[in-house]
Amino acid sequence: MIPATLLAKKRNGHALTPAEIEFLVHGFGSGEVADYQMSAFMMAVCIQGMEPSEISALTEAMLQSGDKLPRCTDRPRVDKHSTGGLGDKVSLILAPLLATCDVDVPMISGRGLGLTGGTLDKLESIEGLQTQLTAEQSSKVLRKTGVFIIGADAKIAPADRRLYAIRDVTGTVESVALITASILSKKLAARLDALVMDVKVGSGGFMKTLEQARELAQSLIRVGAQSELPITAILSDMDQPLGAAIGNAIEVNEAVDVLQGIGPPEVRELTIQLGANLLVACHDGMSRDEAITKLTHNLDAGIAMERFEQMVVAQGGRPDFPRPIGSEWMIECPVDGWIEKIDCETLGQTIVELGGGRRRKEDRIDPSVGLQVHCRVGQRVKRGTPILSLHCDKRHHDDYVARLQNAVTLSDQPVKSVPLLIEHLC
Amino acid sequence: MIPATLLAKKRNGHALTPAEIEFLVHGFGSGEVADYQMSAFMMAVCIQGMEPSEISALTEAMLQSGDKLPRCTDRPRVDKHSTGGLGDKVSLILAPLLATCDVDVPMISGRGLGLTGGTLDKLESIEGLQTQLTAEQSSKVLRKTGVFIIGADAKIAPADRRLYAIRDVTGTVESVALITASILSKKLAARLDALVMDVKVGSGGFMKTLEQARELAQSLIRVGAQSELPITAILSDMDQPLGAAIGNAIEVNEAVDVLQGIGPPEVRELTIQLGANLLVACHDGMSRDEAITKLTHNLDAGIAMERFEQMVVAQGGRPDFPRPIGSEWMIECPVDGWIEKIDCETLGQTIVELGGGRRRKEDRIDPSVGLQVHCRVGQRVKRGTPILSLHCDKRHHDDYVARLQNAVTLSDQPVKSVPLLIEHLC
Repeated sequence: MIPATLLAKKRNGHALTPAEIEFLVHGFGSGEVADYQMSAFMMAVCIQGMEPSEISALTEAMLQSGDKLPRCTDRPRVDKHSTGGLGDKVSLILAPLLATCDVDVPMISGRGLGLTGGTLDKLESIEGLQTQLTAEQSSKVLRKTGVFIIGADAKIAPADRRLYAIRDVTGTVESVALITASILSKKLAARLDALVMDVKVGSGGFMKTLEQARELAQSLIRVGAQSELPITAILSDMDQPLGAAIGNAIEVNEAVDVLQGIGPPEVRELTIQLGANLLVACHDGMSRDEAITKLTHNLDAGIAMERFEQMVVAQGGRPDFPRPIGSEWMIECPVDGWIEKIDCETLGQTIVELGGGRRRKEDRIDPSVGLQVHCRVGQRVKRGTPILSLHCDKRHHDDYVARLQNAVTLSDQPVKSVPLLIEHLC
Repeated sequence: MIPATLLAKKRNGHALTPAEIEFLVHGFGSGEVADYQMSAFMMAVCIQGMEPSEISALTEAMLQSGDKLPRCTDRPRVDKHSTGGLGDKVSLILAPLLATCDVDVPMISGRGLGLTGGTLDKLESIEGLQTQLTAEQSSKVLRKTGVFIIGADAKIAPADRRLYAIRDVTGTVESVALITASILSKKLAARLDALVMDVKVGSGGFMKTLEQARELAQSLIRVGAQSELPITAILSDMDQPLGAAIGNAIEVNEAVDVLQGIGPPEVRELTIQLGANLLVACHDGMSRDEAITKLTHNLDAGIAMERFEQMVVAQGGRPDFPRPIGSEWMIECPVDGWIEKIDCETLGQTIVELGGGRRRKEDRIDPSVGLQVHCRVGQRVKRGTPILSLHCDKRHHDDYVARLQNAVTLSDQPVKSVPLLIEHLC
């Protein structure tokens, strides 16, 4: 096969065969297909799309480029994956919570880039915690605690790692086909028995419209079915941050609150709903109500918190060690009114610029930078009410305080609140 | 500017500004924009197209990436460019012919790749002839003979050379925008006063339909006008080869026939029509009839032939030295009938496979391989009439003879002949 011929076929909007897709991905690994051929292919896929059979073949070829994790216990293996959004700390709560419900949670997670944070970065604000474990080390943690949250090592879907690096710099990130294959090649390598997707919809997430989010969720479910991985999805709102905390150390603290039965109710609610999808999928005969009851109990009774601490310790971390939080600068509501809009982009940008996120892959994270959002859309507020807090030890925080003031839009008319859970798909 | 952002803009079908296009092309030259970013950009352009202002900016940026040829005489400078087709030896005749009409012809030409031959390869079947001259050497030839036919040196539009190498292997050759910029960046570097395009239409050319050919011609004319280079175009038929000879040495011989007032009438006709476009554009007050009369006279009186020999000698060649032609294997008409179709692809493929063309850039050409087409579409033929001759010294020519027999389709009903000149555009 000649790469240019396959690229021209996709350029003209035709579907490639599984063998053709396999040739491109394997050739990319072996050096027979060059970076510049693969980037042109990605661009053609972005514009022309892929049929479900092509996405399955792409996922499979990317999976085959690397190893699978060993299966080291008899418990069902489950995972949750989010498309990423501001303040999304659900993984930190849900992974240990699920592990208390007779399932294993071998969670392979990512780092933050751009506006949305990464679970690994958040976890690393815990003193001593390691996220780069060998397959042997992670199996040991899983056998002991039923859960780990680690980064993908170089042996898991290496084609995905190289492709993502190219997509990132060639404007080819936004493609349902490519996102589906990237997510699922890694999830299939973890040998899961069930996966739940949290697909964020709105200005603070990757999918701006309900239609795009639905398309991605359906693509994931379809390809999962082809590869015998049952996938369900919840579309959840990302027009405002999830919970109050945004940042790294500060999000771990909020996750710990939820694990102790307190914390923002919407974070707790989404966590329980996502968890219920997985328990129902894995435990024969368990109803959704039973799943919700069990998850709620294990949160409220502190069982999940205990498991979280065990996981942290097993990964080398010190859960009791104080986490660094920057000094607080309060932003007050300038007039009476109702919260109309919270501009996720400005909030995310502020965190990144103050060092709490990454502009480039090689940037270091300052875990102490953070924001607290004290209001939600639709809420009635009085002049002088604190609406945001900036946590930051930098000298020139003043500019940011002024900018943050404008990130919250007020209305003099009542504003409807937005529901967090938009749609369940399976 | 961030390359990925510009690529995403084109991916979404938006027009880039001249500054953005300049940034990409210059960045590609300086290394700030990587190969894999440029290939993804080319793919996006192929699928989404470019507006005229974008094509002009791309052409200009590619031109600026290199040097321009020096202007070394006071005569008007003209050139002809063909989109390439089987048996197209017009440049070999037209360049010296025009030089006998008080214009300079600084012709920068290309090599063959795939089914269509290259003027430089054909010329190099003349003993000793050099096509890689320095700017100083080529100026000397031009001052002396009014004409040269050489390859672009590394200093002429180097961005085009690098881009073409990438396009060739990423399925991004077929794009009106990219073809326009590639052709015109080199032609503008030659500081021409007029250019005529021979846009081939049909199965043996690059543009398969009249619509595609017209689109390319109009794009070239439009961008030429933007850059103050008057361009006219003739759309000519390429559903059958041009003239009888296909190959390298054999095409030079046919060109010499036409330069001596004989040779296939259709080759002579197209040459004169293309030349007339240029003379009318450059010589104030000259009518088309006067131009045609002058060109015809200079062919018939042997003046053009003399100039051809001067040019060959000036480029180091020996016009009198016998050119290598392989042994002839005649293919006869199997039945009485009319010629319905001559399959350009099979003819071109045969030449390439026997070594008369290139499969890869690094392949060497065997100039002695060739074909003679003894018939034209619409012609009445008798059983036993020679329809094709294969010239080849290879042992296993038998397979090719059988295949060539099938390249000519016969009808038992009269077939209309196809006109060579389809349309004039200016």
